[in-house]
Amino acid sequence: MRIPKAISDLVESFEKLPGIGPKSAQRLTFYLLHVPQSQLEEFGDSLANLKKNTVICEICKNIDTISPCQICLDSARDKTTIMVVEAPLDVLAIEKTSRYQGLYHVLHGAINPLENIGPDEIFIEALFQRVGKINGEPEIQEIIIATNPTMEGEATSMYINKKLQNSKTPKLKVTRLGRGIPTGADLEYADETTLREAIEGRREI
Amino acid sequence: MRIPKAISDLVESFEKLPGIGPKSAQRLTFYLLHVPQSQLEEFGDSLANLKKNTVICEICKNIDTISPCQICLDSARDKTTIMVVEAPLDVLAIEKTSRYQGLYHVLHGAINPLENIGPDEIFIEALFQRVGKINGEPEIQEIIIATNPTMEGEATSMYINKKLQNSKTPKLKVTRLGRGIPTGADLEYADETTLREAIEGRREI
Repeated sequence: MRIPKAISDLVESFEKLPGIGPKSAQRLTFYLLHVPQSQLEEFGDSLANLKKNTVICEICKNIDTISPCQICLDSARDKTTIMVVEAPLDVLAIEKTSRYQGLYHVLHGAINPLENIGPDEIFIEALFQRVGKINGEPEIQEIIIATNPTMEGEATSMYINKKLQNSKTPKLKVTRLGRGIPTGADLEYADETTLREAIEGRREI
Repeated sequence: MRIPKAISDLVESFEKLPGIGPKSAQRLTFYLLHVPQSQLEEFGDSLANLKKNTVICEICKNIDTISPCQICLDSARDKTTIMVVEAPLDVLAIEKTSRYQGLYHVLHGAINPLENIGPDEIFIEALFQRVGKINGEPEIQEIIIATNPTMEGEATSMYINKKLQNSKTPKLKVTRLGRGIPTGADLEYADETTLREAIEGRREI
């Protein structure tokens, strides 16, 4: 039996998404056969409009409807601090905490030699330009490196830190997010590196 | 920070899919920001065309581009046997085995009182009509009930069997797929019901 092209086309589109294998792609497609045509068209329009109606901010490289983005334009935010993250989703996660009032810099990736992603493939040079630039704007005083605690994230963090140390102004502080045991975790199952970081990073209560 | 509407729209569309939670929906959406516009439009078109370019077969209720479907029209297939399945994906799974040459009947669901799905909500009456109808076509001699071995599937199977026993012609045989230990499984971890079915369904080798 040949599968109708309308079905196999959609299965193929789903299969291209990360974390969706052939079985899930089939399941999603057959599920969609039972939803109203209007919902399918809405979904389709959202896909077609995704990139048309968004833009990468010329300053921080975050994704927004305008450039410079809402955060860069917000005069209430502390323009002397930049938090460096790997992806736009990280910005959302940090914003949800309401504990950070500075600016961001979104790298759109991390250095990963195995996948041929070097510093030039991500928005890393743009970060150094922001640090160097002064023309009337307040000088950057702190860079918080908030890349993921993975091999790639750590490599990226080290690269950024090294570059900044070389061209550093006396005022510039480079920090990274605290490491330790996440809330709700079980000490017994924490890995050695995490425990080591937690001991080193202990704080008075 | 407000999330751009183009992004939240797509996140919402993904969230409506079964098995995709808010986090996965976000992850998929932000992934798609990095794919070419042409791929997004292809995906969107596949969605919009899914239902336009497919039809439910008037005989077996399977999904195809034509009605009656390829399987119902195929003169090489044994028209005296009908396998009853819950979903079009089950047809694909059985077809892949190349061990079945009869026809199908796709219920598009299973009886599930908890979700208010009774016999009238699925294509169950159409099955009885096929069994009763004779006008020139060969008489049905075997109904293989291949609903899932779940509560709902078993209830559906029981309902169909009972109805068929009442209106049964002497020639009509009602069977169900063999139960037992699936290939590659570990006897130690098999549940009691499966083991009981495996013992009852043992075969000479």
